[in-house]
Amino acid sequence: MIHTIEESRLFRIANPRSMAFFGASNSIKAMGTNLLMSVKSLGYEGALYPVHLREEEVLGYKAYKSVLDLPEIPDLAVIVLPTKVVNNTLEECGKKGIRQAIVVSGGFREVGGEGIVLEKELVRIADKYGIRILGPNCIGVANPSFKLNTTFVPHEGPGGYIGLASQSGSFVTQMFNYLYRYDLGFSTAFSVGNEAVIDLVECMEYLGACPQTKVIALYIEGIKNGRAFIETARSIVPHKPIVAFYIGGSEAGRKAGFSHTGSMAGPDRIYDGVFEQCGIIRARSVTELFDFCWVLGGLPRPKGKKVVIQTHSGGPGAAAADACGRVGLELPDLSRETVEKLAAFVPHTGSVSNPVDLTFSKNPDDFYGSIPQLLIKEKETDTLLVYFLTSPKIVERALTQMGIQEEAIDDLSRQWMEKHCQSVAGILEKYGKPVVGFTFMSLKDRSIKGLLSRGIPVFPDPDRAARAIAAMVEYSNYLSRI
Amino acid sequence: MIHTIEESRLFRIANPRSMAFFGASNSIKAMGTNLLMSVKSLGYEGALYPVHLREEEVLGYKAYKSVLDLPEIPDLAVIVLPTKVVNNTLEECGKKGIRQAIVVSGGFREVGGEGIVLEKELVRIADKYGIRILGPNCIGVANPSFKLNTTFVPHEGPGGYIGLASQSGSFVTQMFNYLYRYDLGFSTAFSVGNEAVIDLVECMEYLGACPQTKVIALYIEGIKNGRAFIETARSIVPHKPIVAFYIGGSEAGRKAGFSHTGSMAGPDRIYDGVFEQCGIIRARSVTELFDFCWVLGGLPRPKGKKVVIQTHSGGPGAAAADACGRVGLELPDLSRETVEKLAAFVPHTGSVSNPVDLTFSKNPDDFYGSIPQLLIKEKETDTLLVYFLTSPKIVERALTQMGIQEEAIDDLSRQWMEKHCQSVAGILEKYGKPVVGFTFMSLKDRSIKGLLSRGIPVFPDPDRAARAIAAMVEYSNYLSRI
Repeated sequence: MIHTIEESRLFRIANPRSMAFFGASNSIKAMGTNLLMSVKSLGYEGALYPVHLREEEVLGYKAYKSVLDLPEIPDLAVIVLPTKVVNNTLEECGKKGIRQAIVVSGGFREVGGEGIVLEKELVRIADKYGIRILGPNCIGVANPSFKLNTTFVPHEGPGGYIGLASQSGSFVTQMFNYLYRYDLGFSTAFSVGNEAVIDLVECMEYLGACPQTKVIALYIEGIKNGRAFIETARSIVPHKPIVAFYIGGSEAGRKAGFSHTGSMAGPDRIYDGVFEQCGIIRARSVTELFDFCWVLGGLPRPKGKKVVIQTHSGGPGAAAADACGRVGLELPDLSRETVEKLAAFVPHTGSVSNPVDLTFSKNPDDFYGSIPQLLIKEKETDTLLVYFLTSPKIVERALTQMGIQEEAIDDLSRQWMEKHCQSVAGILEKYGKPVVGFTFMSLKDRSIKGLLSRGIPVFPDPDRAARAIAAMVEYSNYLSRI
Repeated sequence: MIHTIEESRLFRIANPRSMAFFGASNSIKAMGTNLLMSVKSLGYEGALYPVHLREEEVLGYKAYKSVLDLPEIPDLAVIVLPTKVVNNTLEECGKKGIRQAIVVSGGFREVGGEGIVLEKELVRIADKYGIRILGPNCIGVANPSFKLNTTFVPHEGPGGYIGLASQSGSFVTQMFNYLYRYDLGFSTAFSVGNEAVIDLVECMEYLGACPQTKVIALYIEGIKNGRAFIETARSIVPHKPIVAFYIGGSEAGRKAGFSHTGSMAGPDRIYDGVFEQCGIIRARSVTELFDFCWVLGGLPRPKGKKVVIQTHSGGPGAAAADACGRVGLELPDLSRETVEKLAAFVPHTGSVSNPVDLTFSKNPDDFYGSIPQLLIKEKETDTLLVYFLTSPKIVERALTQMGIQEEAIDDLSRQWMEKHCQSVAGILEKYGKPVVGFTFMSLKDRSIKGLLSRGIPVFPDPDRAARAIAAMVEYSNYLSRI
């Protein structure tokens, strides 16, 4: 158990002041070149030393023939070389005095046979010099606030509060843009690869101590050291939620995972038991993994499982009620006091039971102000779930019809939506209860983006919203049991 | 059982040559105005007669004080008036000789009490004059190819192959943009409302006969006439798939549905039995409803449940394998012949088992050409599932690094992607087996849009892809049983 990230063996891997880079050249065909380009494009501020036998300069950085020639001992070596030369390179790094390495190269244990021998040798060299290795067969680290991204894919967005430790590199890199679209991002994300030296548990421990990480995501094909996993998770979960997506439980998942990282998976129910013991929330898909992180990292904890639904439309309201019911959430009746107060805002065709269905708004401002405020103050409400559907097209049509000049419409529509998003965000902040949204609009629509950027999770589907709320309730229940 | 849409009572509701419009004015605050604006903006080509007591002109159309003053007998009356004047208006329409009406107004059976009485009176008037009514408490019809959209929301996109009959108007209107983002659209969509005269079953029958409809979507809160439903469904399913989303099975869904349309729902398992008997595929969410329609309406039928997965990345491949396994799909081993042929394309770090994991491409063209072609020709393959991840950013970065001039990059990148999308579409067309994709990229990314527009469904999640494939298999199994 560590208390600060500086105590972790990963600290100078995720926060290196200087790097030696092996395998980058000026040819885009080399994997290493792509990785160095990602480092460069995020604006890494430390010293960069490409090591290359023939090049004088690599991507504008002075290159060195040998790591032994470098003018200082870098904090980190990033190795993206053909398998057969990795171990010699690591030996030289050790001689130079480098004590941290990311080995991106594959062809080790995961391919079996000779690969297993090569990996043993790699570990022997690491032990000999005391080198802390992430990988091999990994994609490295993304730590956006430190401007570090050693992966193949250029980083997008400003980073965020989700810490990730992943047995797949793709769930680091291919999530940059995915999370960005939800206005989310990684605090720090580790691709652990074959875990020859540093394993998933150490990454989890680092993220547990990381002040920017509000929730930890794990992608697991198989856990190697069950006891350490459980102990570490149990020490973290009381103060920081952990969500895990485990794919080894189905036969197809197990076989695919084995061919991917050589992980030995166990039956689903064993993992279920492990997760339950530790209070880890289990996700059943990548989508759920980050959905759950979104609400667990971004919202206050719900007190219980009672959800009040606010909608403009009967069908989506009923579908949301059904989705909540199916995952064990409850839809309480509203108190008489709230019902009476609501009456002023709800047309006679609407409903003041739960879901509260306006059918249409007497005054659109109420939908984003007085109504959610009344509903969140309701004592029966643990979580407020709101259906958002105000399409900019309809707002613009209305403004046109009201005789507003064309050139003013875009500004007015923007102001109108900003005001509404701000109003919902204010309600979330003031009352300390979770507010979750869902919509069938594009998340790029202005009215939805405005909510996302203010920390209101809006799911593109009531089912995803319901499952995310259920994940929050599960975590609250765990906290109240311990 | 009808054989052409002309035989249906809905024909002149969905294809009216002329319309009387009640409740539209020049004020944007009136619901009816919004509906008429939607009709107008889609470019309806028939005659339009707004009926209004005071206005001379409504939205540019000559207005009439009374329906009796109209210069012809319109095919359809659209009524968006306060509840209390609906029945009188309908009576006048009857006197004029109008035989089709859409009653959008709510406040009937769904609100109970006096509303029930009003609805009985409405039905009596309809019977007296032989008026075929859609509604009340509905949002009308969208028939994009006829340029008809009587709903609140402006229609987007060109229409498509999904026919919808829905007990929620929102699942008509709020799906326009949703479907458009997947390059999908409605052939014809009906909001059935309270089904006072025309019910869900008649809409289903219409869609069964509609040549533009390749698959039928149903949103159900409760079925009124079980026997007719079953008979009609059984007559349609052998030649056209039906997908149903039923929300009345959970207590929360049932309560919400009742307050929405007054439907009496039945237990889940009864509906499961009904759907199974008819070969209707059951969806568990709105998302699944349209996901299933996408593949069932757009792809050839798979022969069985064997899925071959092609990926660039181990994690997404393993997650897809797991998702397939969990929904009962099988991942067959590839034949020795295919494995031998694949070897030329797969790097030594990759895997030629199933999932076929390239880890990286020796030649990117292969990923869109030779490899999927080999895999679809494989006799074990019933469906090919491909992970798409080629981000335009990475392509552009590569082109820049290759020294291509900045102004040529966008064009080259576009051509490159177009060629690849075309290649995948060609494979789908040539071999008559379904090809399904998944990605974590935005569906708006050029490389994904290019696939969607060529009829390759690409899901934003491997789980959704797996469930959609399982729905196709379920339908194939039904067809081979009957």
